[in-house]
Amino acid sequence: MDKKIIGIDLGGTTVKFAILTTAGEIQQKWSIETNILDEGSHIVPEIVNSINHHLGLYNMRPEDFIGIGMGTPGSVDRNAGTVIGAYNLNWTTLQPVKEQIEAGTKIPFAIDNDANVAALGERWLGAGENNPDVVFITLGTGVGGGIIAEGHLLHGVAGCAGEVGHVTVDPDGFQCTCGKKGCLETVSSATGVVRVARHLAEEYAGDSKLKAQLDEGYDISSKDVFEFAKAGDPFALMVVDKVCFYLGLACGNLGNTLNPSAIVLGGGVSAAGEFLRSRVEKYFAEFTFPQVTESTSIKLAQLGNEAGVIGAASLALDFVK
Amino acid sequence: MDKKIIGIDLGGTTVKFAILTTAGEIQQKWSIETNILDEGSHIVPEIVNSINHHLGLYNMRPEDFIGIGMGTPGSVDRNAGTVIGAYNLNWTTLQPVKEQIEAGTKIPFAIDNDANVAALGERWLGAGENNPDVVFITLGTGVGGGIIAEGHLLHGVAGCAGEVGHVTVDPDGFQCTCGKKGCLETVSSATGVVRVARHLAEEYAGDSKLKAQLDEGYDISSKDVFEFAKAGDPFALMVVDKVCFYLGLACGNLGNTLNPSAIVLGGGVSAAGEFLRSRVEKYFAEFTFPQVTESTSIKLAQLGNEAGVIGAASLALDFVK
Repeated sequence: MDKKIIGIDLGGTTVKFAILTTAGEIQQKWSIETNILDEGSHIVPEIVNSINHHLGLYNMRPEDFIGIGMGTPGSVDRNAGTVIGAYNLNWTTLQPVKEQIEAGTKIPFAIDNDANVAALGERWLGAGENNPDVVFITLGTGVGGGIIAEGHLLHGVAGCAGEVGHVTVDPDGFQCTCGKKGCLETVSSATGVVRVARHLAEEYAGDSKLKAQLDEGYDISSKDVFEFAKAGDPFALMVVDKVCFYLGLACGNLGNTLNPSAIVLGGGVSAAGEFLRSRVEKYFAEFTFPQVTESTSIKLAQLGNEAGVIGAASLALDFVK
Repeated sequence: MDKKIIGIDLGGTTVKFAILTTAGEIQQKWSIETNILDEGSHIVPEIVNSINHHLGLYNMRPEDFIGIGMGTPGSVDRNAGTVIGAYNLNWTTLQPVKEQIEAGTKIPFAIDNDANVAALGERWLGAGENNPDVVFITLGTGVGGGIIAEGHLLHGVAGCAGEVGHVTVDPDGFQCTCGKKGCLETVSSATGVVRVARHLAEEYAGDSKLKAQLDEGYDISSKDVFEFAKAGDPFALMVVDKVCFYLGLACGNLGNTLNPSAIVLGGGVSAAGEFLRSRVEKYFAEFTFPQVTESTSIKLAQLGNEAGVIGAASLALDFVK
């Protein structure tokens, strides 16, 4: 039997697991709730138990696996296999994750941060088509990302490579939680889209149902903004255009700098689909020089929630390189 | 005897050569004029002759070398070893450089573009301190660059990676020769610095010798701008501040995206030295989030004109990897 790989996507509410072939075919998948009680001290033991339980169910042994890969929130030391500062897991102190999982499962273990493993997943089996140069941007509650260049996931000297959410798209822009101003995240995360809408509403005088809802104090979401825009609301269209201007500028500069085959947009905001992608692409073309405009594509993510577990599993492939 | 490597830096006026140890020690160096007559058809034969002549002088044979690496202007196909569109060499048609040099010298040959090999040089033996993540920006007649990430020189899908001169720093900025607006090159190349001066001069009303020279129609250079600024001219200081704002913004976003250990500034404009570097660093800090501000340094290039020949030679090291 060919050896398999295991992927784990550790999140604040669930832990997703999958067993894959080295060709990327998912053979089994399951999930458990994330137990963040007692400073998250149950998380790793429950991951170990769940893996061992499922290997028993499938009649598999540790020797049947090349390795386990995991994506996690927080600050990761890949070499040590430790995590710190994952606040949605209540992990405030250093967690020796690799040590505990290898001791508990007898399978080699690798770890990286969640945005990076999602990028690896989309690159391997999603919109990235397994090309050597792919950038992934996830537009969710925040904006994160991962960069694969010349076939290698980039980390940078302090592990901050791929933090595209903090690219400055407007030097005079909104204050970001990171401490600086005008980050992409402030205008293109789910909350960023609403922020742009509230800001533009102050000066918009025409007819608009979206503007009326804002004025009346309704709690709107980025999904609402896109739905109003798709229905032709002129103010909502203006908001979407502004968001796509910033995304096109950021993607343009990623293109001019890295010239990937694809910049892949994922996360909740990307559920707006082709309506979003085509508008980002328009500004991308404006902000890239011709060779980049022609060779770098703007694409929508294809794997959805499975990107994490697939990309995590791919970390284990490094054990046989 | 340990095998050596040869570096060639092909430019529009001279071809520089060096013989190095694999540790990067230059053992011999020489140069010849670039003969661009007859559509540049003499260039490669004269390179071959010069190498063979010098190997004779030093009593060396082709077997004494791991390989030859060359940096060139124009559009490079690294795998085929060809160059096209190097207009300052009069190379308008496809040049089979690798084929001709390998046939003429019997030494394996590798090629990349001039900005990329300069980046490799500064990374290996200059300000990059041989770290795996280094960005090099050359501020000359134009603005070019090269990116080394996770130890690999980046090329991108169409060879445009590292084209940091065309990062958009002002969406409403000056028209660039590349076809788009607001490129870093339009405001931080040697001509870009003067362009910023002329633009700001229109609205500057105070006392300034630099402004007076511009108003009287003198032909000023970027060096003049920096010299006036260093002497305390308030208008020149304003110009330098604006140039450094744009450089700090571009470097900031390179930092937020790639988190290199160093962003190295080279080329003619960087002759302004610490006066320039410290001002770029100030804006870099403003446009990066704290972990990047702390881990990525802004540095001045250290190798000057030798960066090209050293980095070119390093291409040959890939023959033994």
